[in-house]
Amino acid sequence: MSWKATVVTLFPDMFPGPLGQSLAGRALENGVWECRTEDLREHGLGRHRAVDDTPFGGGAGMVIRPDVADAALAATAAEANIPCVYLTPRGRPLTQADVRRYAAGPGVMLLCGRFEGVDERFLQARGVEQVSIGDYVLSGGETAALVLLDACVRLLPGVMGSELSGVEESFSDGLLEYPHYTRPAVWEGHEVPEVLLSGNHAAIAQWRQAKAEETTRERRPDLWSAWLARKNGNRAAAVGGAAQADLGV
Amino acid sequence: MSWKATVVTLFPDMFPGPLGQSLAGRALENGVWECRTEDLREHGLGRHRAVDDTPFGGGAGMVIRPDVADAALAATAAEANIPCVYLTPRGRPLTQADVRRYAAGPGVMLLCGRFEGVDERFLQARGVEQVSIGDYVLSGGETAALVLLDACVRLLPGVMGSELSGVEESFSDGLLEYPHYTRPAVWEGHEVPEVLLSGNHAAIAQWRQAKAEETTRERRPDLWSAWLARKNGNRAAAVGGAAQADLGV
Repeated sequence: MSWKATVVTLFPDMFPGPLGQSLAGRALENGVWECRTEDLREHGLGRHRAVDDTPFGGGAGMVIRPDVADAALAATAAEANIPCVYLTPRGRPLTQADVRRYAAGPGVMLLCGRFEGVDERFLQARGVEQVSIGDYVLSGGETAALVLLDACVRLLPGVMGSELSGVEESFSDGLLEYPHYTRPAVWEGHEVPEVLLSGNHAAIAQWRQAKAEETTRERRPDLWSAWLARKNGNRAAAVGGAAQADLGV
Repeated sequence: MSWKATVVTLFPDMFPGPLGQSLAGRALENGVWECRTEDLREHGLGRHRAVDDTPFGGGAGMVIRPDVADAALAATAAEANIPCVYLTPRGRPLTQADVRRYAAGPGVMLLCGRFEGVDERFLQARGVEQVSIGDYVLSGGETAALVLLDACVRLLPGVMGSELSGVEESFSDGLLEYPHYTRPAVWEGHEVPEVLLSGNHAAIAQWRQAKAEETTRERRPDLWSAWLARKNGNRAAAVGGAAQADLGV
């Protein structure tokens, strides 16, 4: 059974777009996943197929009508157990844990907003998950949907193969990854850190862990605090005799 | 003068991709921005045009060589004052403030990684900004680059026109936006909150502010803490007689 991506959008031609190439593109050809779209415009009202209207209470911009969004959702005939996700800066932040959950299921239904967004009654009534890919504003949900699908598809069985490597682990232990170096060993006078050429695996592992911690502390104080708290919590739990082998993230 | 986007990638056909349509597409046709690509593969070494090699110190995956990345960067002949951004989960998080800064300048140069990433010496030697669009792992930097460009292009003069609306303000005051409602006033028995139909502008503004605070508190404890700290800081400053009109974010 293919993993099913269904995208409700005013711009169906944007899909699969970049995901028609490279790893995701090969997986699409091989039937590992499917990418269907539902054109919101086809469910618009009247001669102009209007999908939006002015916001109650006033203000700039237009809001997508609940009846139009609902008609589009109904037309997709998505299975009831597929998560329905609306991409919006008002959502909770997308994490790699969400991505793993979506990838492990039968697929996702993604709703791409434009303008000021979608009527809140529709989102509440249909139990739509509101998810944000980051703290910036896009012209619509379409590029965010491509990002979410890219993240999911690479985790589907057989897609990455042996290419699924350390990057993944880097998020699962709560630290950013250490820096990478490859040939040439000297480039424009810049040498690779000596320890990496030493063949001393323990020293290399220690150096990489120290670099991962340093990078996280410098660039992501939020992740660093969480990591420290977890580490200290684990130690406290171990001292108390209640250590658990796998606390995860 | 057009705003210049240059993308170094192994998949130049992914650009402009979805940004060739809708608002960004029209702006591209009108010369508001340009989208050039530089194919990393063309700078690869040997008969197979190899761009990567195994990591020093061992481990899974491949790392993009510093000499190959540098040759591609040099070939773009980007102006010296254009920020060079490498999209990586190891980077600092992209914010709307970064987007505003990029959009206000002459353009951006984006470097899309694949595999385990790019040799760190190249990133350091060339002063490349390392930026992450969120805490998830993609198959490459391409969909992240599309997101960054989408966010920038909508801010270029003339692109959004009157469509540039409240969404923007919602991030600038540090809170998530309030929910939106439009016609019909009753949808499947769900009514629009009464205050929005009242015509009482002060009451509407108060309700929206309360909803923005509630949504932020529930979904983004991180933004909520920062907003509270700023608010209390402002109050303290005002009490001390040192209030500033515009602290911004």
